[in-house]
Amino acid sequence: MNFDYSEKVKEYQRKLNDFMSEQIYPNEKIYEEQLNAQQSRWTEIPPILEELKVKAKEQGLWNLFHPDATYGAGLTNLEYAPLCEIMGRSLIAPEIFNCNAPDTGNMEVLSRYGSDEQREKWLKPLLEGEIRSCFSMTEPDVASSDATNVEARIERDGDEYVINGRKWWSSGAGDPRCEIAIFMGKSDTEATKYEQQSMILVPLDTPGVSIKRMLSVFGYDHAPHGHGEIDFENVRVPATNMIWDEGKGFAIAQGRLGPGRIHHCMRLIGAAERALEDLCVRVENRIAFHKPLAEQGVIQEWIADSRIELEQARLLTLKAAYMMDTVGNKASKTEIAMIKVVAPNMALKVIDRAIQAHGAAGVSEDFTLAAQWANSRTLRLADGPDEVHRRQIAKLELSKYKE
Amino acid sequence: MNFDYSEKVKEYQRKLNDFMSEQIYPNEKIYEEQLNAQQSRWTEIPPILEELKVKAKEQGLWNLFHPDATYGAGLTNLEYAPLCEIMGRSLIAPEIFNCNAPDTGNMEVLSRYGSDEQREKWLKPLLEGEIRSCFSMTEPDVASSDATNVEARIERDGDEYVINGRKWWSSGAGDPRCEIAIFMGKSDTEATKYEQQSMILVPLDTPGVSIKRMLSVFGYDHAPHGHGEIDFENVRVPATNMIWDEGKGFAIAQGRLGPGRIHHCMRLIGAAERALEDLCVRVENRIAFHKPLAEQGVIQEWIADSRIELEQARLLTLKAAYMMDTVGNKASKTEIAMIKVVAPNMALKVIDRAIQAHGAAGVSEDFTLAAQWANSRTLRLADGPDEVHRRQIAKLELSKYKE
Amino acid sequence: MNFDYSEKVKEYQRKLNDFMSEQIYPNEKIYEEQLNAQQSRWTEIPPILEELKVKAKEQGLWNLFHPDATYGAGLTNLEYAPLCEIMGRSLIAPEIFNCNAPDTGNMEVLSRYGSDEQREKWLKPLLEGEIRSCFSMTEPDVASSDATNVEARIERDGDEYVINGRKWWSSGAGDPRCEIAIFMGKSDTEATKYEQQSMILVPLDTPGVSIKRMLSVFGYDHAPHGHGEIDFENVRVPATNMIWDEGKGFAIAQGRLGPGRIHHCMRLIGAAERALEDLCVRVENRIAFHKPLAEQGVIQEWIADSRIELEQARLLTLKAAYMMDTVGNKASKTEIAMIKVVAPNMALKVIDRAIQAHGAAGVSEDFTLAAQWANSRTLRLADGPDEVHRRQIAKLELSKYKE
Amino acid sequence: MNFDYSEKVKEYQRKLNDFMSEQIYPNEKIYEEQLNAQQSRWTEIPPILEELKVKAKEQGLWNLFHPDATYGAGLTNLEYAPLCEIMGRSLIAPEIFNCNAPDTGNMEVLSRYGSDEQREKWLKPLLEGEIRSCFSMTEPDVASSDATNVEARIERDGDEYVINGRKWWSSGAGDPRCEIAIFMGKSDTEATKYEQQSMILVPLDTPGVSIKRMLSVFGYDHAPHGHGEIDFENVRVPATNMIWDEGKGFAIAQGRLGPGRIHHCMRLIGAAERALEDLCVRVENRIAFHKPLAEQGVIQEWIADSRIELEQARLLTLKAAYMMDTVGNKASKTEIAMIKVVAPNMALKVIDRAIQAHGAAGVSEDFTLAAQWANSRTLRLADGPDEVHRRQIAKLELSKYKE
Repeated sequence: MNFDYSEKVKEYQRKLNDFMSEQIYPNEKIYEEQLNAQQSRWTEIPPILEELKVKAKEQGLWNLFHPDATYGAGLTNLEYAPLCEIMGRSLIAPEIFNCNAPDTGNMEVLSRYGSDEQREKWLKPLLEGEIRSCFSMTEPDVASSDATNVEARIERDGDEYVINGRKWWSSGAGDPRCEIAIFMGKSDTEATKYEQQSMILVPLDTPGVSIKRMLSVFGYDHAPHGHGEIDFENVRVPATNMIWDEGKGFAIAQGRLGPGRIHHCMRLIGAAERALEDLCVRVENRIAFHKPLAEQGVIQEWIADSRIELEQARLLTLKAAYMMDTVGNKASKTEIAMIKVVAPNMALKVIDRAIQAHGAAGVSEDFTLAAQWANSRTLRLADGPDEVHRRQIAKLELSKYKE
Repeated sequence: MNFDYSEKVKEYQRKLNDFMSEQIYPNEKIYEEQLNAQQSRWTEIPPILEELKVKAKEQGLWNLFHPDATYGAGLTNLEYAPLCEIMGRSLIAPEIFNCNAPDTGNMEVLSRYGSDEQREKWLKPLLEGEIRSCFSMTEPDVASSDATNVEARIERDGDEYVINGRKWWSSGAGDPRCEIAIFMGKSDTEATKYEQQSMILVPLDTPGVSIKRMLSVFGYDHAPHGHGEIDFENVRVPATNMIWDEGKGFAIAQGRLGPGRIHHCMRLIGAAERALEDLCVRVENRIAFHKPLAEQGVIQEWIADSRIELEQARLLTLKAAYMMDTVGNKASKTEIAMIKVVAPNMALKVIDRAIQAHGAAGVSEDFTLAAQWANSRTLRLADGPDEVHRRQIAKLELSKYKE
Repeated sequence: MNFDYSEKVKEYQRKLNDFMSEQIYPNEKIYEEQLNAQQSRWTEIPPILEELKVKAKEQGLWNLFHPDATYGAGLTNLEYAPLCEIMGRSLIAPEIFNCNAPDTGNMEVLSRYGSDEQREKWLKPLLEGEIRSCFSMTEPDVASSDATNVEARIERDGDEYVINGRKWWSSGAGDPRCEIAIFMGKSDTEATKYEQQSMILVPLDTPGVSIKRMLSVFGYDHAPHGHGEIDFENVRVPATNMIWDEGKGFAIAQGRLGPGRIHHCMRLIGAAERALEDLCVRVENRIAFHKPLAEQGVIQEWIADSRIELEQARLLTLKAAYMMDTVGNKASKTEIAMIKVVAPNMALKVIDRAIQAHGAAGVSEDFTLAAQWANSRTLRLADGPDEVHRRQIAKLELSKYKE
Repeated sequence: MNFDYSEKVKEYQRKLNDFMSEQIYPNEKIYEEQLNAQQSRWTEIPPILEELKVKAKEQGLWNLFHPDATYGAGLTNLEYAPLCEIMGRSLIAPEIFNCNAPDTGNMEVLSRYGSDEQREKWLKPLLEGEIRSCFSMTEPDVASSDATNVEARIERDGDEYVINGRKWWSSGAGDPRCEIAIFMGKSDTEATKYEQQSMILVPLDTPGVSIKRMLSVFGYDHAPHGHGEIDFENVRVPATNMIWDEGKGFAIAQGRLGPGRIHHCMRLIGAAERALEDLCVRVENRIAFHKPLAEQGVIQEWIADSRIELEQARLLTLKAAYMMDTVGNKASKTEIAMIKVVAPNMALKVIDRAIQAHGAAGVSEDFTLAAQWANSRTLRLADGPDEVHRRQIAKLELSKYKE
């Protein structure tokens, strides 16, 4: 369990940190301004984003997430962790490096389980950053924390599949470049529990697909990416759009969720690190009651606790990454579940303290704190609520004591 | 310390609860839709709001906040507490009953400290709900938790005062009906610490007043009310706009903050009560792992802790109200400080649990939870951050042990 | 819900506070010394205790707990609350006022449900403080949090009952003056769930009763009172020792537990108040890093949070007391459950902070903090663990939403 | 930063775990019984202890703590961590392996800074486990969290030093085998801040040394080891008893505290692991409300949180150990401070949950939980309270932002 960074990783860290300082942080406000200046927040992409993507690609800071060198940087989870952390420091950064959810997960699915045709048609432009994708799994009418609740249907009809269902929290669906959804639904309600579901590719312009609305997260619309509630009504796609095979939906989801979850955690660590930096800078420079806030014992306690929680979350994430690399995602499920609980809660605590130290400025758009807080809060729910992960951890722990 | 509700209070409770059920809850979505349908969120008021105001006024549910029967209902703090709590259940309700911040505080200031002319010109239309007002105290460049930091200036020049300063978090400033600001600034930097500041009335259409931007709170713009950052540059108002007298700013602020703070706390209790209701209804009706969420022990723990925290916060608020009524705001400062710490933190915990129980729906606009959470979060900062209140509570406690 | 103290209560408060200052606090160490000087900690009672009992009785500070004026002071729960709180400030105080558990609960049981003969034989000397009693309900082999788990048996055999069972945490059993146990067990395993159990009086000198050992609480033996593990093996008592009637055990327990629980809570509030006083005095007088600890922001936060938690716990306890007085114990079960969760946890937090502020002295015998902490910790378990109370609170809350 | 266990470490782990299972756990009760059967708890050593020491030594499980192969196993901190953790699972284990505080720290001091004569006379028998030692630094009259507060004096007088001072929490002083104290005091109050203090060896039988009393910890006397309050009155020792040199006390303390602190943390991790095991076993086997406690969601949450907190604390401890090994104790001071805060608080939480799951049994002597809790609680104070460590962490964090 060697957590040292290799020279290759250190070089990427240097380049990424430079890129963040020179290209990302100074353009966060510009991105917002361009977005707000658009006729609609949903119809165009702020130009700065595509400009920065070009620059990132030029510098080789592109598709670092992909563990297969055919498609990306070919880094292990342990190698990618400190890089993904850096990207997590800015909410606009991941896409600029083509490392944003849900596209990363979708690209992994296509590269691992997709047919040649599917890879050519969808994976290639995704890897190039030309199109975007969404993942349609969660449903408004049932508790998705229990995956067997899914009600959507994928039914074979000749050379086609007919798709029906209402999905929401299809993140990325609002983006004008979003062309394809990976849709999860039941293809055989008679099969065994874990073979009822399939995943199928649905182009968003297929008749019967309609985005009913874009959901907000606290007051954020997350435009132009956004979170769509989508109606799929008698949507027909060629049978070749099925991924892997009928009944493989659950198996694909398991493969997809491990990396997806750990990437979220890595980014949250970066978000928390930046919040702690913001906090420290703020309290050094803000005077109240005749001394800098930094000299207040309570503020010092926030800093110490933040540092402590951050270090621990990072080490646990590295351990999970190491295990995924060495014993596989399945054997790492306790560790993945643990960081999925730890990282969002840690980030929420650290960011909340930073907000408090900033006074009212902290809840406003003047810092990225409030937006990062809202994002972190959703990650106590996305990919399973804390409670489901804790339950799994407990069951695995208790299983040690059963014969 | 009798916390029983009088018949008068019970009658108001009945009427308010009925009004909430019949008029407010069903119209929350309509209010949002009307607001979103406007050309701009800032130029008009959703018609439903004014319609409901008329109905509330007709039913005598109007200006219940005002302790002086000349201006309002003439209720004590203890009597108003359970009524204000009910209003706090909906973010659109307080204004419908003409009981929203900062207008209530401003009306109290004008009725207690305003001249006849000031009362005629500003208080009257405020009491009628015809105009709105804002309160310009906090400044972006200094830590406002320490009131002596204020940098704005109010200087006498003949029959006028010349006003300079940058203020922000002037809540309500975005409203097209907002006509007047109460502005706080230093009129005499040589005076003793608590006599340097004054409060003065500044019509928003006075030359030199410019709203630079409207601030967001966790992505919410709170339009059309909003939170303004306002530049006051060589703004000239008649000397008669001074409230009470030069140097009385701090004294007025002290008088204003007690009721203002407790009203916030009362509303937060209502917000938390509604969140707990939402939580209970949700978990009764949501199935995961073959049983309603309500049967999960962890969920039951959330419900129990929420009920416990709510009851305690309400009792402490009632005690503070009772003390304000009987021994005055000054002698109640420990109690006011205590509820100012307790109520927002309690509400945040209860609402956060309700969000978690709702899954992703909880962070969206489908419930009022996320918006209420964001509002509650600002109240750990508004009117003084928790830390300043705790400090004061500690000092008062320690003072018992000094001879 | 009037929480004001009557003149009668204020007079008792004055007398009790004086007695505490003059007689109890200065003798706490002497009590310990006398106890440690005894040949065995279990065979004698430190003389100072009986001396102080005489003084307390002389001053009318005796049996204040008993709500029936025939037996005690005839105070309501609301009246007794602030008095019991004062007694809770010292671990040796309750017995000195004849107000200590489990004797108070046992005396209540006998006065409400006992026969004339039982009252004459056992209640009278208990009220006089001449003998002590214990309560044998909890069993080592089953989870007593679920009362239906009780395995002990009480079987009728002619004019006698034959008693079998292993009980532990029979508090008071170690006391050489302890003469009588109230024993709970099943008299009819075929009866309906709540009518299977009975309570019966068992003199400790009856053949077949043997105290196997005295249990410790953390490192405290709580001698000479103590907590006994008692074996009851074919113990025969006259049938007239049955309390009320066969099958009434559960009904009596319900009646007994309400007051018992609230008394614990009242005492915990007193214990926490004293801890906060100790903390304040300590930090005013202890210098580190060139200033008194009292000037450290973190310490101030402890003080503020302690004051806040204390006030809330006291108000909730008063509300529960008021409700017990007005609507009865059964209708107050939510409130009783709430304070049973709140008071021990609050006391543990406040006392823990006081310990931390005292440094290593805090965990030693030099202050009453460590002993009070250990006592408070047991009260998260005694009379039902927190979790069972929370579960009940949740069920009552959820029941509001079921038709 | 490679946390993998080497083959050597794995072999030690196997042997230690076997020894714990075969020799230690089954003898914990016997140790207690022997101790209680003694005429006094302070005059003799329970025979089982010395018997087990012999066995441990035979198996090479001896002095594993010492990083210098001349004196012990010559393991790095990273290697020793998982071994020390195992020893921490039982309160009687560390001494059986000659790895208990404060003897380990004292042996390290003597081996690093002692003269040949001092090593021959005191280190040798300590390494053999023939004698025991104590460390006399903390004083009752001043806040020892600020080391400059020390008031004790060490004054040169010819060939001797004259020692005066009152020390307490001299752990181990109660042991009949305890022969020597390392005493810290000021030898030159005029020197610069960090050169005023010296450490000197004081045989406990020197005239003028008197143990005033043994202090308790939450009711535990920790006999026969114990915590002494010791009066040093005009105690004269040869000048050759000075360790290293006059004025080196602070430097030695710094060297001593790093390893001392991390050893405590390692042991606490072991204590918490055992508590979690106890918890799991208990809840699998205890039925309430018709199912094992293990199926209660709240209990599962305790288990999950415990596992999460444990893993994180262990990783952070390993990181600190790794850094001490590679960059030295001084450059690791943030990490040492972090684990010093994390480990005791983590252990307290985990053990407290285990206590709660055990019901009243948890606070008794039937499990090691209560005793381990009390021990862990003192470690939030020993070697500096949490607050001092947090303060240091914050200062180091803030220093990154100062030019």
